[in-house]
Amino acid sequence: MNSISSSSLDYRRVSRHFQRENTIIETRGIAIGGHKIVVMAGPCSVESFCQINELALFIKSTKACILRGGAFKPRSSPYSFRGLGEEGLKMLAHAREMTGLPIVTEVMSPDQVSLVADYSDILQIGTRNMQNFPLLCAVGRTQKPILLKRGMGNTIKELLMAAEYIVDAGNNQVMLCERGIRTFETMTRHTFDINAIPVLKDLTHLPIIADPSHAIGNAQYVPSIARAAIAAGADGIIVEVHMNPSLALSDGEQSLAPEAFCILMHDIEKIAHATGRSL
Amino acid sequence: MNSISSSSLDYRRVSRHFQRENTIIETRGIAIGGHKIVVMAGPCSVESFCQINELALFIKSTKACILRGGAFKPRSSPYSFRGLGEEGLKMLAHAREMTGLPIVTEVMSPDQVSLVADYSDILQIGTRNMQNFPLLCAVGRTQKPILLKRGMGNTIKELLMAAEYIVDAGNNQVMLCERGIRTFETMTRHTFDINAIPVLKDLTHLPIIADPSHAIGNAQYVPSIARAAIAAGADGIIVEVHMNPSLALSDGEQSLAPEAFCILMHDIEKIAHATGRSL
Amino acid sequence: MNSISSSSLDYRRVSRHFQRENTIIETRGIAIGGHKIVVMAGPCSVESFCQINELALFIKSTKACILRGGAFKPRSSPYSFRGLGEEGLKMLAHAREMTGLPIVTEVMSPDQVSLVADYSDILQIGTRNMQNFPLLCAVGRTQKPILLKRGMGNTIKELLMAAEYIVDAGNNQVMLCERGIRTFETMTRHTFDINAIPVLKDLTHLPIIADPSHAIGNAQYVPSIARAAIAAGADGIIVEVHMNPSLALSDGEQSLAPEAFCILMHDIEKIAHATGRSL
Amino acid sequence: MNSISSSSLDYRRVSRHFQRENTIIETRGIAIGGHKIVVMAGPCSVESFCQINELALFIKSTKACILRGGAFKPRSSPYSFRGLGEEGLKMLAHAREMTGLPIVTEVMSPDQVSLVADYSDILQIGTRNMQNFPLLCAVGRTQKPILLKRGMGNTIKELLMAAEYIVDAGNNQVMLCERGIRTFETMTRHTFDINAIPVLKDLTHLPIIADPSHAIGNAQYVPSIARAAIAAGADGIIVEVHMNPSLALSDGEQSLAPEAFCILMHDIEKIAHATGRSL
Repeated sequence: MNSISSSSLDYRRVSRHFQRENTIIETRGIAIGGHKIVVMAGPCSVESFCQINELALFIKSTKACILRGGAFKPRSSPYSFRGLGEEGLKMLAHAREMTGLPIVTEVMSPDQVSLVADYSDILQIGTRNMQNFPLLCAVGRTQKPILLKRGMGNTIKELLMAAEYIVDAGNNQVMLCERGIRTFETMTRHTFDINAIPVLKDLTHLPIIADPSHAIGNAQYVPSIARAAIAAGADGIIVEVHMNPSLALSDGEQSLAPEAFCILMHDIEKIAHATGRSL
Repeated sequence: MNSISSSSLDYRRVSRHFQRENTIIETRGIAIGGHKIVVMAGPCSVESFCQINELALFIKSTKACILRGGAFKPRSSPYSFRGLGEEGLKMLAHAREMTGLPIVTEVMSPDQVSLVADYSDILQIGTRNMQNFPLLCAVGRTQKPILLKRGMGNTIKELLMAAEYIVDAGNNQVMLCERGIRTFETMTRHTFDINAIPVLKDLTHLPIIADPSHAIGNAQYVPSIARAAIAAGADGIIVEVHMNPSLALSDGEQSLAPEAFCILMHDIEKIAHATGRSL
Repeated sequence: MNSISSSSLDYRRVSRHFQRENTIIETRGIAIGGHKIVVMAGPCSVESFCQINELALFIKSTKACILRGGAFKPRSSPYSFRGLGEEGLKMLAHAREMTGLPIVTEVMSPDQVSLVADYSDILQIGTRNMQNFPLLCAVGRTQKPILLKRGMGNTIKELLMAAEYIVDAGNNQVMLCERGIRTFETMTRHTFDINAIPVLKDLTHLPIIADPSHAIGNAQYVPSIARAAIAAGADGIIVEVHMNPSLALSDGEQSLAPEAFCILMHDIEKIAHATGRSL
Repeated sequence: MNSISSSSLDYRRVSRHFQRENTIIETRGIAIGGHKIVVMAGPCSVESFCQINELALFIKSTKACILRGGAFKPRSSPYSFRGLGEEGLKMLAHAREMTGLPIVTEVMSPDQVSLVADYSDILQIGTRNMQNFPLLCAVGRTQKPILLKRGMGNTIKELLMAAEYIVDAGNNQVMLCERGIRTFETMTRHTFDINAIPVLKDLTHLPIIADPSHAIGNAQYVPSIARAAIAAGADGIIVEVHMNPSLALSDGEQSLAPEAFCILMHDIEKIAHATGRSL
């Protein structure tokens, strides 16, 4: 009686049956989904010109190759900090100019798509919008790479079908991102679904990215989940980093400080090599 | 380490602490949240002029007082029937003219809000859009009553905070709808969270509506859940009804045929009386 | 890839296909599963001779007809109160002599079965032991009625198969008890699976009992869930009651005080009548 | 309102606050919880003298160092194969004599403990018995190492408190095993909770073992989860292996064939080295 069934309404173009070889997505000379593991890093929110510049320079000094940062922030409460909006996008663009790092940032509604696409190299669809179908169609009409996060209450199959929406609208540059699902366990923020990584690598040709920061919600445990994701076969990770996590305007408790991030980079490089890949 | 905490970022204006008396929402002479239990009924999707008219006349012949029907349909697969769009809205409006029944239909994106508001008496935010914050803000800027469905992966607290977004944007005419959550149980489509009804009635002054059809996903079991919801204190139910469920373009297996709907209406009237209310 | 499949390993004798008519279980003149709704009430734990006697006399003064109380208590922590053991059983037996109320109490291991069966009219298998198969076989070799609680992490199908173990061992006097499942919702202790009631009434001929106290974990909300369970078709409820909940050695926050229990009895009697049954 | 709270009823002796250094458990010269990663492998069920001997010889030829195999099998259906019982234990003991591999097998009830302890080097408490407190106390009174599996519906904290029961009864030789939890995802048998590994390594000094086979339920995906578990910090894994999975009497679809197991051993050795450990 479950809602999932094998039928003509399934995903098609995102399937390995449709395309055997891995899709490799390129942006500013970075290839995502190939031999190299990709690390995207940055703050939860862009907070100021200085904050994002300082952090971008730090990120640039590591082997991380893409800068993340939120300008439009979906927040459960209307009274939380909702991001700097277009000002934040401009700060991200400036940080890119300075460092050459491509940027990834979230877009929350169809009418923001062209604005965000003007600034950002990769458009992120957040967990709460995985089944926001008008938004999926809107980003599907751009030619920007899309980072599609799994909904915290959505199945692997629904994630594939959400990607199918984007591809069906004309854009096959889609990365899928596992970022933790809702379960009964309360000691961690969400439960990172490590199973999703080999299952997705088997079912689809699209690159798979892991977000350990949101999944476990505690900076101390993020490196273990990052290593596990690479060991399980992920093509990259996206990690929250902040020069001073205790002062972050959002998600401070799950953001890595620079030193911890350097250790993480070192550790995942070894795991990457152990699985026949590189950083 | 859970994301829920009592803080200044909580819901405020939807709280019983902010307003002790129940909010009563009125539309075309129907009061929602008062002494009378409200029944909203109709097909999952508007399929044709004849279909919706015939069904509206049938609904009108019962004590159900609001007509539901989908014109813009969020579907997990891009290859499923996605609704008739504005044509569907026109058919709903015609059915309203014929019967006098107010209508409720879903709106899926901010740029559809004014179109849907032109036709519909109540705007529905579907389960996949409960945390589509730009959409919540957009419907919050209308003065139409809103039926806000709980996300299938969202907590009771997040439902309250989503309502807070709408109220914060200027519209306090919000009904909350429990429609089942995702759990490990696979025999039913979702798990109807009956606990949510007394908890919400305690925490908020807003009317609470139950959707037994999507929660259990099987027409045979819908009446039991409808009775239970009324017994638990819900202010109304929204039920899928189809003149011929086996021919429905969507959700046929959970739609009630006319005869079964009449029995349900009879049964919930008795439950309503047993709880000191009426239909 | 789910573990549930329709096969020769399914439940058989507990199925409606095997026996169409409802099983009615009798104990000391009380029929469970017939026209009358059965109410079992009492404290979480038997705490003292006085406590259980006073409560039994109170229960006797209402239309509740079975006395519940724990003597052997499964507790998550080894440092919690684990019950009075055989002394508690003797106190329950004395309370039965005084009031005529049959008693139901939990048995936790195969080697306790004969001891508990010497004192108790109904043997309860708790939520943590639903798949304790040696225990199911042991109670299946008695001729005492069994109250089998659903595991908080178990499916409806597994509940039916656990009952099949008992019936297969020779005892067909089994009641099934829905008591809430684990979900991501944290505002309530568990999520009462109201869907399970009509599904179980459809699939099996065994009586279905609801435990609203453990499901929601908050005395204030227990009556709503009790009413809902009866409205959905349950054959009875089991409720925690304490003369002074704030002093209870376990589960005080979900135990009803006498006055609240009287209101609940009054309210569910009206719901029972509305569904064509009586108390 | 959740049941978990920090209180005097928490786990104590299993906590890192009680003992800072890792507990190392020894059995027949194998150290569990030390520098070396431990691999336990074998069939779901002992099926015959030949089957277990052939498999034991194969396991011995790899770097796996402990033989697993079920003699008493908890099965959801009473009509499934429930294991060979004491005959199975004798076969396991013979395989140990032949190969020198210590054995681990499940014990299901308190009255089986002394029998199983006579044959087995490590006593396994299965997922369905994690809160079978009389059984925990019974194995706590032996001096055999215990492999305690997390209940599929139980929290990390409850797992720690179940271990506390065993330690409190006198046996501090306890390994904790993450084997997947119940979630809404249906594409995999359970969801392996990778988060549990760093959280448990932080909170307790006990060794942590991962069971990828039961967690994901599909042999094809088992190696990815095994690698991930080691990368996240697990002290060992327990894996189902069968000379001919398609002929297995139970769990064939998740059992590795010999060749696949050899590849897995090779791959996890590289991951072990990458994390500074060895096999």
